[in-house]
Amino acid sequence: MDETFEFRPIGVVRSSRTQIVDDGWDDEQSSIELLAPFDERALRGLDGFSHVEVIYVLDRSAWTEERVLRRPRGNAAWPEVGIFAQRAKDRPNPIGLSVCAIDSVKGVRIKVRGLDAVDGTPVLDLKPWVAQFGPRGPTAQPGWMSELMEGYW
Amino acid sequence: MDETFEFRPIGVVRSSRTQIVDDGWDDEQSSIELLAPFDERALRGLDGFSHVEVIYVLDRSAWTEERVLRRPRGNAAWPEVGIFAQRAKDRPNPIGLSVCAIDSVKGVRIKVRGLDAVDGTPVLDLKPWVAQFGPRGPTAQPGWMSELMEGYW
Repeated sequence: MDETFEFRPIGVVRSSRTQIVDDGWDDEQSSIELLAPFDERALRGLDGFSHVEVIYVLDRSAWTEERVLRRPRGNAAWPEVGIFAQRAKDRPNPIGLSVCAIDSVKGVRIKVRGLDAVDGTPVLDLKPWVAQFGPRGPTAQPGWMSELMEGYW
Repeated sequence: MDETFEFRPIGVVRSSRTQIVDDGWDDEQSSIELLAPFDERALRGLDGFSHVEVIYVLDRSAWTEERVLRRPRGNAAWPEVGIFAQRAKDRPNPIGLSVCAIDSVKGVRIKVRGLDAVDGTPVLDLKPWVAQFGPRGPTAQPGWMSELMEGYW
């Protein structure tokens, strides 16, 4: 499969965070603003949902092949895991994904909580959070991941 | 923001479903197979998670601007909603997203349950499901969406 796929941003992140920092995202103010040609019709009905999934471009990340297997955040206490078993931002395809709570939808702007993307980040897609699309059955994750997430939000 | 972003598949969906049908996905057998240059190192540790988020290309969909506002599945009983307030496959950027339960990880193949993608679908990214990245606070969605999901899985 040699094909590549090209995407154009449909929106942009506006955030009080302008520098790349790993943790403490709940301190920030964030919104998503649609870009032309999209207008408020594209968001109609979104305010009937509590949360939105935001798919964005980690456009300031840098993938290199030696990152395929590494300790998250370089922490020697945690195991070496593959890039698809972690959510590190330096990925083969620099795609970010977050589920945000919707505060308000006004015009082409969605005010959200819980968006871990810096100001200016290009947004590729928005999908409403649907309970039936959440994980089914009991969920589990390794201890290192729970430790990593302690200061994240 | 005139920039575009180009991505190359990191894997491919193998599924018993070869035709595009909206519903009844739980009847299918599905797995994801990594493509070269990726090898099993990229998946190391993924078996410590119960679920994986799969970001894929809806490569047989077709976006046209008049779809920006429409009734989901053309159902006259449901409201007209914007494309970013629904998960219809015909989207400005044809990106699909599903959370799948992991059955097994062997070599470059992940056997999963709950993947609503047809055979041959290009996969762009895999991220382990992390509880702290799930929706925070109570979730809500409109009644039409719950109705739509009734036969989905």
